[in-house]
Amino acid sequence: METTFNAENQLAGSLSRVIDAFDDEVRSDLPFVNRLLERVAAYRGKLLRPRLMLMAAEAAGGVRDEHITLAAVVEMVHMATLVHDDVLDEADVRRRSTTVNRLIGNEGAVLLGDYLISHAYHLCSSLGSAHYSRRIAAVTNTVCEGELMQIEARGNFELSERDYLEIIRRKTAALTSVCCELGATAAGADEHVVEHMAAFGESLGLAFQIVDDLLDLTASEAEMGKSVGRDADMGKLTLPLIRFRETAAPEDRRRLIATLSNGGEDKTAAARSLIASSDAVEYARGVARSYIEDALARLVHLPEGVGRDALAATAEFVLDRRH
Amino acid sequence: METTFNAENQLAGSLSRVIDAFDDEVRSDLPFVNRLLERVAAYRGKLLRPRLMLMAAEAAGGVRDEHITLAAVVEMVHMATLVHDDVLDEADVRRRSTTVNRLIGNEGAVLLGDYLISHAYHLCSSLGSAHYSRRIAAVTNTVCEGELMQIEARGNFELSERDYLEIIRRKTAALTSVCCELGATAAGADEHVVEHMAAFGESLGLAFQIVDDLLDLTASEAEMGKSVGRDADMGKLTLPLIRFRETAAPEDRRRLIATLSNGGEDKTAAARSLIASSDAVEYARGVARSYIEDALARLVHLPEGVGRDALAATAEFVLDRRH
Repeated sequence: METTFNAENQLAGSLSRVIDAFDDEVRSDLPFVNRLLERVAAYRGKLLRPRLMLMAAEAAGGVRDEHITLAAVVEMVHMATLVHDDVLDEADVRRRSTTVNRLIGNEGAVLLGDYLISHAYHLCSSLGSAHYSRRIAAVTNTVCEGELMQIEARGNFELSERDYLEIIRRKTAALTSVCCELGATAAGADEHVVEHMAAFGESLGLAFQIVDDLLDLTASEAEMGKSVGRDADMGKLTLPLIRFRETAAPEDRRRLIATLSNGGEDKTAAARSLIASSDAVEYARGVARSYIEDALARLVHLPEGVGRDALAATAEFVLDRRH
Repeated sequence: METTFNAENQLAGSLSRVIDAFDDEVRSDLPFVNRLLERVAAYRGKLLRPRLMLMAAEAAGGVRDEHITLAAVVEMVHMATLVHDDVLDEADVRRRSTTVNRLIGNEGAVLLGDYLISHAYHLCSSLGSAHYSRRIAAVTNTVCEGELMQIEARGNFELSERDYLEIIRRKTAALTSVCCELGATAAGADEHVVEHMAAFGESLGLAFQIVDDLLDLTASEAEMGKSVGRDADMGKLTLPLIRFRETAAPEDRRRLIATLSNGGEDKTAAARSLIASSDAVEYARGVARSYIEDALARLVHLPEGVGRDALAATAEFVLDRRH
């Protein structure tokens, strides 16, 4: 138990260094910019991506200074996507804080996201090795593709499960994957371990996004601390609805599509009651669970220890979270 | 004359390689993304930034493969800012083509800009040396700051000339400066030459933006091939209006601010007729001219030759352009 306690203490200490590195990088000589950045701080959530980076580092050889920098980089990338997502989705509430775009308009939100992504690359290039910059930029390429695919798929009620999974693989799992990959790389792990860590992060990211989409459909705004029901409102099909469409009687299937196409005030509530007696939610949870099992299976290739245990616990948490 | 002819041929050949490098980098496996990119190609203008890069290279030791890559990088950064500017300014027309945001919405325009900037960093990191990534990211930090300052200054009719110049130094001149700087660096020039080239590019960029803002006030949409009169409509003060405010009689000054604050249908036409009999336009042109003189003075530190001549001709062109 003492080992775990110390491991948690150590992780907390490293995360605090990550936040300092983040703040040092983004601080501006312009007071206006710093006031905007205070708003961004309110977005800060569970620091999943820095945690993955640090746990992968711990599991694959130990946390080094490079990991602190890289963890700040991935969090900056993630924050930038949140800020730009708010432009995209016109979300009203995120993490119980007013969204940036409500305060400074879409224009300010676009620029603030650009500012964060620019600083992410700037910080990353301070590491000296172009490998990290190259990998991070390759992943942000992929994330943008995933988001663009998602826009293209909007209103496409024939979206297949396979295409849905490809979208979330690019927009979410690519980043969680590179966190684990570079955590291992920068710890000096061999290629074999780096590959297993990348696969662990990808599977975990897929499960995370499936659960996130599920909660958007089933949880309340109060539970989540951010807008929910956005997906159905935006004509975005997620896994439970795809499952329902594939398995429901023709009449129910037509009703689902009618609900999503023009379904009045609260499409989410209507869709939720439509799928209530089906296996749709259970099915989506099952797919998430199988990705978590894939992820856990990768961990056997790592040495036993607190790093590996922490990664396993995080994988379980992704599946169990209720908000 | 034959030398010049050959120099122009050589520049055209290099520019064609830059466009190939650009297209190779951004091409996607997703047809939807490639269709969006065709729209971006329509934004392509005079390729000022790649030209500056290549001319600086030629002047400082000769064009190398790194310059082709870097020129594609700076053009990608520039394109990303254009795409995001269209979100910002809700511009209807640019380069006689329908803007991206009119076609795919603000959301698509945000993501497409993100896609371009991500690929810019990705391509830049292929150079191996982290120095280039570091410098490009430092400049994009500065560009974002300039754009954010501009948002903050919107509707501030007391904006000083000094603050106006600081905004355009960050949002425009920082990028033209780094084109010339890295053109020299990658040509193997010594530090002294690199500094003069950076200063040349900054002065040229300042003059370029002053003239651009002037044309927004004085030119027609047909001449410019893009929306004009946006600055006054958006409450953005530029140099001629600042000059007028500083030198006009109190009554005229009040009229200017009243026009910009609530001035009906066409603020630009109203502002234009208000300043017509003043020295405002002439003054702004004079400030641009003095920056061009500063730029030209830097060129004496370069060896004589076609590269230096081309840079000088570009500086003159910036001042003389009418669209």
